[in-house]
Amino acid sequence: MAGERIFLDHASGGPLWSVARAAMEKVLSGHGAAPGGGHREARESREILEASRKQAADFLGTDDSERVVFTSGGTEAVQSAIRGWGEAAGKGTIYVSEMEHPAVESAVRRLEKSGFSVVRIPVDGEGRLQWKKVKPAGPGLVIVHLAHHDLGTVQDLKQAATFAKEAKAGLFVDATFGAGWVELPKGLEGVDLLAVSGHRLGGPKGSGFLWIRSGYHWKAQVEGGRQENDQRAGTENLPAIAGLGAALEQWKANGERLRKGARVAQQALRDEIRKKVSTAKLQGPEPGLERSPAHLGVSFAGLEAESLALVLDRVGVAARGGSGCVTREMKILPAMKAIGAKPEEARALILFTMGPETQAFEMATAAERVEQAVQKLQAAMPN
Amino acid sequence: MAGERIFLDHASGGPLWSVARAAMEKVLSGHGAAPGGGHREARESREILEASRKQAADFLGTDDSERVVFTSGGTEAVQSAIRGWGEAAGKGTIYVSEMEHPAVESAVRRLEKSGFSVVRIPVDGEGRLQWKKVKPAGPGLVIVHLAHHDLGTVQDLKQAATFAKEAKAGLFVDATFGAGWVELPKGLEGVDLLAVSGHRLGGPKGSGFLWIRSGYHWKAQVEGGRQENDQRAGTENLPAIAGLGAALEQWKANGERLRKGARVAQQALRDEIRKKVSTAKLQGPEPGLERSPAHLGVSFAGLEAESLALVLDRVGVAARGGSGCVTREMKILPAMKAIGAKPEEARALILFTMGPETQAFEMATAAERVEQAVQKLQAAMPN
Repeated sequence: MAGERIFLDHASGGPLWSVARAAMEKVLSGHGAAPGGGHREARESREILEASRKQAADFLGTDDSERVVFTSGGTEAVQSAIRGWGEAAGKGTIYVSEMEHPAVESAVRRLEKSGFSVVRIPVDGEGRLQWKKVKPAGPGLVIVHLAHHDLGTVQDLKQAATFAKEAKAGLFVDATFGAGWVELPKGLEGVDLLAVSGHRLGGPKGSGFLWIRSGYHWKAQVEGGRQENDQRAGTENLPAIAGLGAALEQWKANGERLRKGARVAQQALRDEIRKKVSTAKLQGPEPGLERSPAHLGVSFAGLEAESLALVLDRVGVAARGGSGCVTREMKILPAMKAIGAKPEEARALILFTMGPETQAFEMATAAERVEQAVQKLQAAMPN
Repeated sequence: MAGERIFLDHASGGPLWSVARAAMEKVLSGHGAAPGGGHREARESREILEASRKQAADFLGTDDSERVVFTSGGTEAVQSAIRGWGEAAGKGTIYVSEMEHPAVESAVRRLEKSGFSVVRIPVDGEGRLQWKKVKPAGPGLVIVHLAHHDLGTVQDLKQAATFAKEAKAGLFVDATFGAGWVELPKGLEGVDLLAVSGHRLGGPKGSGFLWIRSGYHWKAQVEGGRQENDQRAGTENLPAIAGLGAALEQWKANGERLRKGARVAQQALRDEIRKKVSTAKLQGPEPGLERSPAHLGVSFAGLEAESLALVLDRVGVAARGGSGCVTREMKILPAMKAIGAKPEEARALILFTMGPETQAFEMATAAERVEQAVQKLQAAMPN
């Protein structure tokens, strides 16, 4: 392999943004006092905490910042959102697709076991939720992702909000994939709960937050000390929170430029791969407003994704064989099943995901390496 | 106030140890790949993760490292331990004192509401659990802290293990206060679950772990992705985990020296305060093997702890008015109630807690400032 490695697995984890790192290092080198105390050091920490909360609310475009609850990441935010709603509601109907992230799906199944009803929202061949094909079956919670983690599909939150209203249900937006990369509805109209993962938008690992609309009935899931307004116990992870705040501020200021930059890289990679590899097939919508600009999912029918990812690694591209979150027994991703993909495509999905610092000019090289890897793997296969 | 501030609120939060900071910064400046992937960057991250897990097991003095589960901190570790045991067991008796940390108490109450029995273990006037005064009432879980967060009392884990065996119950050691500062039983004999908080031993905030004995029946509480051997979902907070590992290694190598250093500071502070303030009364055991060397709880009868902490802050000592984790309605700490402290002492408890870098020579100055603060507050009080 000639040249630099190209890292295209940002959705799993990638470099910390310089602005977030600077904010973290400032806290890491300081007195480290917890925000919850009466002394000067505690007050200083409290100022950082509350400034970060303000940055989170600004990022969401809301003044309603009291219930920005910092969590240990996207998974905790998602699990807390759903389980905390369930505990507060006691019963109800959950409206959700069959292709959600396991963090969502496992929380839904927990509630289902304890007596909640579940109505599944069907999807079309590119992963769009089909709101018109589902009927309200009583109050509860509508769950929708902002962008799909395996397909890149951006969901129509307006339709989701309209449906939720019709069903007299709350609306939880899982924005752990998509936040930053996809614009949120103005004023979070119709949204009651929203989860964000820090590291997927250039912020620190171990950071994320759950936003809860003021007055919305929800119960804290991590109990103990009185941190986060009694909404999430445990000493605040201030370095991570400060780093997340800095990343969110950066998005607020430069979101449009970042989204454009990623879209250029995404389209370049899609075009180059299409030119070079005849078996390559884009999964999910074409690049555009219906697809996260940081996500390209391509299947290479006839190959097995994990093997292809390993060969890609050897030729200098870090990408993900699209089954990171699937159990060993389950060979096919729920999303590929939901969209009705052919089994040979479903087994062959590679996810290329971009970060804030991904460079479009590298995409031609990345595609050359994809071509190489596909050829190598095809050559190695038994006839 | 003359001279440097003296920070004695390490139990709430304090400076990150230099060795932990170096380990974190190395990860923060790297590629940031998540450990769960097939590419080179993921494998590198996996090595850091598994090296940290080994450091955690070494710290505990066990080879049984498979079920070291990294968490977002002590609170999550404690809550997961108890709720995960409860979910796996389905029913049983919980043996626990009435003066546990709210993270423990809230998990116990959750299980109690869902049908578990609770037997309360009484304590003596210095906070020692009275195992002989409680009778086995069926299998379940014995909960014991390693050192008490408000009293500093070190519990007798041998007695706890003997009792658990007699009751045919599991044993959960909440070491979120005490780990490092207090030695653990060799080979963790009789212990089934154990929780550690990272920042209380000089490690990063947002770090901690739960140890589960191999084969012990326990169910994961944060579900989603397959991280941590299916025991804790969510992208691993690798910088914090690496920092925690480095801190734990430091304890393993220098624990005895660190404990001695803290004990010298503790005794100096106790002696100097005793000399200077006649109303000062030590709560919990005298410094020695029965008390965490990093903890000094002193009540100043007639004063109100929060006010005294504020005046202490103004004269240059950061300490905690001992009611950080108590609700506003509950004016008296559960621990002070449990040991039968007089109300005027219970309201007046100040916690001085040491960190790895606390200097004994500063304690005389600290005590002078305590004297000043007490005098100021007494002078300001209505007759």
